Amino acid sequence: MTERERRGRRGRRGASEGVEETKRATSYRKLRNTFAPQQAFSEDRVAAMHDTALRVLEELGIKVLNEDARARFKAAGATVDEDWMVRLDRGLVEEAIRTAPSHITLYGAGPEDAVGLGGPDIAFVGVGGAPHISDLDGGKRPGTMEDAANLIRLAQEFDVIHILAPNVEPQDVDTHIRHYEMSRAQLTLATKPPFVYARGRPQALDCFEMIRIARGLSPEAFAANPYCFTVINSNSPRQLDIPMCQGIMDFAEAGQPTLITPFTLAGAMAPVTMAGALTLAHAEALAGLTLAQIVRPGAPVLYGSFTSNVDMKSGSPAFGTPEFVKAALGAGQLARYIDIPWRGSVGTASNAPDEQATYETLMSMWGNLLGGAHWWQHAAGWIEGGLTASMEKFILDVEMLQIFAETLVPLGADDDEIGFDAIADVAPGGHFFSVEHTMSRYRSAFYEPMLSDWRNFGQWTEAGSETASTRANRIWKQRLADFVPPPVDPAIVEALDAFVARRREEGGAPPVS
Amino acid sequence: MTERERRGRRGRRGASEGVEETKRATSYRKLRNTFAPQQAFSEDRVAAMHDTALRVLEELGIKVLNEDARARFKAAGATVDEDWMVRLDRGLVEEAIRTAPSHITLYGAGPEDAVGLGGPDIAFVGVGGAPHISDLDGGKRPGTMEDAANLIRLAQEFDVIHILAPNVEPQDVDTHIRHYEMSRAQLTLATKPPFVYARGRPQALDCFEMIRIARGLSPEAFAANPYCFTVINSNSPRQLDIPMCQGIMDFAEAGQPTLITPFTLAGAMAPVTMAGALTLAHAEALAGLTLAQIVRPGAPVLYGSFTSNVDMKSGSPAFGTPEFVKAALGAGQLARYIDIPWRGSVGTASNAPDEQATYETLMSMWGNLLGGAHWWQHAAGWIEGGLTASMEKFILDVEMLQIFAETLVPLGADDDEIGFDAIADVAPGGHFFSVEHTMSRYRSAFYEPMLSDWRNFGQWTEAGSETASTRANRIWKQRLADFVPPPVDPAIVEALDAFVARRREEGGAPPVS
Repeated sequence: MTERERRGRRGRRGASEGVEETKRATSYRKLRNTFAPQQAFSEDRVAAMHDTALRVLEELGIKVLNEDARARFKAAGATVDEDWMVRLDRGLVEEAIRTAPSHITLYGAGPEDAVGLGGPDIAFVGVGGAPHISDLDGGKRPGTMEDAANLIRLAQEFDVIHILAPNVEPQDVDTHIRHYEMSRAQLTLATKPPFVYARGRPQALDCFEMIRIARGLSPEAFAANPYCFTVINSNSPRQLDIPMCQGIMDFAEAGQPTLITPFTLAGAMAPVTMAGALTLAHAEALAGLTLAQIVRPGAPVLYGSFTSNVDMKSGSPAFGTPEFVKAALGAGQLARYIDIPWRGSVGTASNAPDEQATYETLMSMWGNLLGGAHWWQHAAGWIEGGLTASMEKFILDVEMLQIFAETLVPLGADDDEIGFDAIADVAPGGHFFSVEHTMSRYRSAFYEPMLSDWRNFGQWTEAGSETASTRANRIWKQRLADFVPPPVDPAIVEALDAFVARRREEGGAPPVS
Repeated sequence: MTERERRGRRGRRGASEGVEETKRATSYRKLRNTFAPQQAFSEDRVAAMHDTALRVLEELGIKVLNEDARARFKAAGATVDEDWMVRLDRGLVEEAIRTAPSHITLYGAGPEDAVGLGGPDIAFVGVGGAPHISDLDGGKRPGTMEDAANLIRLAQEFDVIHILAPNVEPQDVDTHIRHYEMSRAQLTLATKPPFVYARGRPQALDCFEMIRIARGLSPEAFAANPYCFTVINSNSPRQLDIPMCQGIMDFAEAGQPTLITPFTLAGAMAPVTMAGALTLAHAEALAGLTLAQIVRPGAPVLYGSFTSNVDMKSGSPAFGTPEFVKAALGAGQLARYIDIPWRGSVGTASNAPDEQATYETLMSMWGNLLGGAHWWQHAAGWIEGGLTASMEKFILDVEMLQIFAETLVPLGADDDEIGFDAIADVAPGGHFFSVEHTMSRYRSAFYEPMLSDWRNFGQWTEAGSETASTRANRIWKQRLADFVPPPVDPAIVEALDAFVARRREEGGAPPVS
């Protein structure tokens, strides 16, 4: 049995029998986090933070701007005062924590697209919600539908990206029809689970219908399993706005997961201490997931965390900082305390896909890994604090994610791998290049990078002294040029088109705020 | 008590009383690794690797090119055959492991320069042994004494660098007098513990004498504590060359630490499996440290590890790869198994201080952190697989090391830090900028980066759209321009100069090989 077979790496791109294998086969789907989580706080202080969050919801409350959501909270036993402040009894929150699932499987078009979230199962997701796009050729500019489609293509192209994302805002498409175009692009250019905007009930219902068409599901079958997701950001501190509440309710009702993610910048919309910022975020996430469980006990939710700090001189948000990493470790402890899958965040404040973007991003990725995040949001393509999606950064990040995926594969150490006989085979000062122990393994032993250039200085110089971001520019263009969309039944495409045409004729669905 | 005071951060650069504090005080000396080590192998397989390494030394042996070393091994009970193969009984190795210390304190000029190595105590050390220097202005070129002196200045300038290193080879100084110039530069431009070349006994004794002059130590006082170090690389597989053996013996005799570091590239001079490469490295390190303990039981040694993989197409060495990270975790397990402080390695194969250099370096740094390395060698300035020291990379790495140092500071989570009252102080949708909880902490709450630029896109563009490596270029020049050498007693400088003048007149000390 070869090393490669032992590791189960013979993926869909494996070479056929009898054909010379030129590229190591890899599969980065179904990743499992093999690293032990690190602790930012002692267990008793995690309990104290959880308890304080319950106190915040019980004594201070959370302002709920959506009338229906207030009514649902009230019917479940919460008190609601005249200025829309909802106070949640801790028993209500604890019951919601009990009914929320600990593991979620999110389905795409085929069995290989299914993504586990929870326990050791983790997933990587690209940049979401950037108003701008940039590349080294054209610089920064408003996002378009073509840019969004290109980022969907790249997300489909790399199997280390597991779920689609609201990558860039297609600002050339009106907001009352944008969700149609984004859903159609996700469902025809990719097979991976799509996102859906939480911009009011009409848009959500439209997108659910399109997903049912694409996946061939009855409303009941759709509601029985997760097939898409949305992101819910609370308005920290202590406020849930109208569309966010509506999204929680619509998705819970439809059995679709919400990522309930307070965006708490310590020292700005949250306490300046990371413990305080995490406690506030925890309270807000608990309020959101309680609403989901009130609507439908057992509704899939992810505990979202996006806690970082600001530059205290300018108020600018920062990402991938020491505080960010420690907050990710702490958020993981809080998520495990309530045993709900959690979505972490990857980020950088850098304005370019440069060295700063690289180290801030990689530090935040390590925070996700060691914090045990199940869902790494914004893990490819994000720069400028999320204001811009960068094509080159997407490639840089995919390379880093592939390195993580390979790092998660345990090393073997059976007697043959320890290799006393191989060591005995080579004389002092000799080399292992041609021994059988090497020859039988070398094709598959090591990760082959996509972006890293390991040539020597002379070869690299002769080839133009390209830095990694310049090579990334070539790579994304080549990958897009070579992209082959997945086969989609023409009848499905026709049905999607007909649905969109009808709904556009009916006036579309303007976002609700 | 302020947050800053609680953390004990008021360092030597703290603001005076009554003066407006403009910069957060930091101190990155005396770092402690607060992260739990990660495991690459199960404990029983670590034991199997250790046992296999003992078998390698017992049954296969290690070739020892140095006659005196062979005699020492033989006198201690090893068998030595006619082709210089030394076979070590496992009892001899186990006794050496017992006598080698578990913790080392390495001393510099002052108490604040002392560095702990072992247990939680860790240290960061810059690039060593690069033949070339590069910067963005002048490109790559052979190293000179001025380059080496500049890298000593930078190592002294940043307190996150704890120990000096043989940064770049000063090729403009002849090898029979190079050690004088390097020692003089280290002892007059810096206060941190210096390195000494292991290029034969005469050079080592010269350097020991210079250190005794600079530190005002008798030979006995010098031999009683570590004041310098050297790096010993075995000639993998299974070979110890003449100067390396000599270095181990000379340093052990003088009570000075050696970093016994097999450089095992899996698939080249070591088995292609990481378990095999680590086992071979372990055997070689055990042979070296056994020699040190034979010479002087209790001599300080560091268990060195530099195991990575090669590009199996070209044979080029690679660093910061998934295999590299896992090897660092495994090396840490082996080092803890024998309970000896261990030196890890940081690296990249990139030819420029670019994004690839950044992620490969940062991945390898995380391998060191999570592997529990006590000594992070090559942690600032290394590019091109160690062939070049890059000035910009030095700054990039110092920024990353500072981020690590800050990440190692535990977060507080007492009741005031969790901050129920602060959360209660801010209304839903409000902000925390001006509350007392923030105001009393904001100056010191967060790391202030040296290199990262958190300005918004407009400000960054107006300022010239500099990427991080371009900013790093400005920073190292400014730091060198502003550098103030530490005060050194003129009598010491005079004595050093007199010693060097005399030894040069006597013909210097050519390297021995």
